[in-house]
Amino acid sequence: MLNEKWAVAVDLGGSNLRAALVNAEGKILRKVKQAVGEPREVSAFFRRLIAVLQDVAGGIPRGAKLAGIGLGLPGICDPKEGIVHQLPHFPSWRNVPAAALLAESFSCPIFLDNDANMAAKGEHWRGAARGRRNFILLTLGTGIGGGIFFGGKLWQGESGFAGEVGHMVIEKNGRACPCGKKGCWEMYAASHAVPAGKKAEDLSRAASRLDPGAQKFWREFGNYLGLGIANLALITDIEYFILAGGLSGASQHYLEPALSAARKNVYPKLGERLIIRRSALQENSNILGCAASVFQLSSSHGASEQSHDLR
Amino acid sequence: MLNEKWAVAVDLGGSNLRAALVNAEGKILRKVKQAVGEPREVSAFFRRLIAVLQDVAGGIPRGAKLAGIGLGLPGICDPKEGIVHQLPHFPSWRNVPAAALLAESFSCPIFLDNDANMAAKGEHWRGAARGRRNFILLTLGTGIGGGIFFGGKLWQGESGFAGEVGHMVIEKNGRACPCGKKGCWEMYAASHAVPAGKKAEDLSRAASRLDPGAQKFWREFGNYLGLGIANLALITDIEYFILAGGLSGASQHYLEPALSAARKNVYPKLGERLIIRRSALQENSNILGCAASVFQLSSSHGASEQSHDLR
Repeated sequence: MLNEKWAVAVDLGGSNLRAALVNAEGKILRKVKQAVGEPREVSAFFRRLIAVLQDVAGGIPRGAKLAGIGLGLPGICDPKEGIVHQLPHFPSWRNVPAAALLAESFSCPIFLDNDANMAAKGEHWRGAARGRRNFILLTLGTGIGGGIFFGGKLWQGESGFAGEVGHMVIEKNGRACPCGKKGCWEMYAASHAVPAGKKAEDLSRAASRLDPGAQKFWREFGNYLGLGIANLALITDIEYFILAGGLSGASQHYLEPALSAARKNVYPKLGERLIIRRSALQENSNILGCAASVFQLSSSHGASEQSHDLR
Repeated sequence: MLNEKWAVAVDLGGSNLRAALVNAEGKILRKVKQAVGEPREVSAFFRRLIAVLQDVAGGIPRGAKLAGIGLGLPGICDPKEGIVHQLPHFPSWRNVPAAALLAESFSCPIFLDNDANMAAKGEHWRGAARGRRNFILLTLGTGIGGGIFFGGKLWQGESGFAGEVGHMVIEKNGRACPCGKKGCWEMYAASHAVPAGKKAEDLSRAASRLDPGAQKFWREFGNYLGLGIANLALITDIEYFILAGGLSGASQHYLEPALSAARKNVYPKLGERLIIRRSALQENSNILGCAASVFQLSSSHGASEQSHDLR
């Protein structure tokens, strides 16, 4: 294993922090998971994070090298500058220079991006989008995130913010979104759509038991999901959609209505070609995307045409 | 002028056919305009079109060469195959092999695309998007068309249909669109939004006279225009929007509310950077885009990575 290169990948969620050691073939050698818990303030959190990363990196075989660290984060990031602008689950973080903070302890290149972009890179490298030049990955969780591949590369936009599809308005004057707007897509096809006092997992189990109320909930969820997918397909003429994130586990309950609604809302020639499928890597898509960033196996265009290396 | 190259450009609309002779610097030497009138059936129409093109091409200076013909068409085209799938103003046209029909009379390469894509190429070459790598051009006419530039190139999508932004649903269960859907963007921010029995030009004149009803109409129009632009900006992280098409002439009445609505519907960092402006080339953007296609001055990616030459 001499000269082999390894990446350390970090999947940070609102509840769990997962870190893994991944080789250049996408093999996960070591993985740790811990509750995020408290405190979440920047300096305390980064002390913990650095300790976790050092622990994981300790698994690198003798003679092999740490090629880089990749982080997939649940919020608005600037991949070019290595800055985290805003993470809803970490309210005290504002414009945190995350790459620079880690660079104090690690001498390798550091890559960060939002979780949907990283998951798209992961699926492109080792999952449901292998060999696809154009696709959109949607993370269905609390909200809806998007990672968009055009021409074989992740599209990051002018400033690294592309793919904020969850706040696309699909129902003017519709349901109030925590963002302050009304009728955002994610109010209808993400956890926000789950009625107060209920849980998505319970609704999924109930639908499996053929509970009519739960089945109706998921049909409605699928209708809205498909409507938004149709909007994206009309704009981009991309025909391949991958569902990831926590709620993709319940996709058997809403995939059919979603596909049917998407097809009804584009013209027939595009509808025939539309494919919506579940992530192949599931909980590892973000982690493998972080590793892909390190190995630069799927590069990006837009904001970060220059991938950034703090050294 | 020996060895100089010229393009013949065709801007076909629902009412008028315009054809022009354009040189490699974007100078228009000769331009003809005629009413489309009747008949519009394929064979009769193409006989007339070929006569017009031969007339225009007759203006090519001695020793100069016809480098190609470009057509910007008001509907759904396949630029790769040179086929016109559907033009609302030419209902009898279905999957018309337009490039092949012209190739019977002309021995040069023939390029076709929808008018919004051509207008985007024109603005990129000689107009409001010179030097911009990323922008979206919107044609505001009967409906809303879109031409999207990513990374300095027109994005045509998987099959050449990208940019069908007018049928993005922004108000589920909203106004009925002729396409059969409800709440399509173009029902609110294009001619479709004009109340029955009224004309956009009259509403524009009335607003210039400070007629409150007309001013209210354009404010509402601008609100909806801005909402859809915000959706596009959130998805693509593109910050530069150009308005073209017939209704862009009334933009003084709705540009401010449109910008204000767009900014309110994206996050502040993106809102600060958003620019919405009117086409610089106005009625010539489509024609100059057709010429740009011929001279391949702004190439495209997606469907037509291979630009097609029938010879």
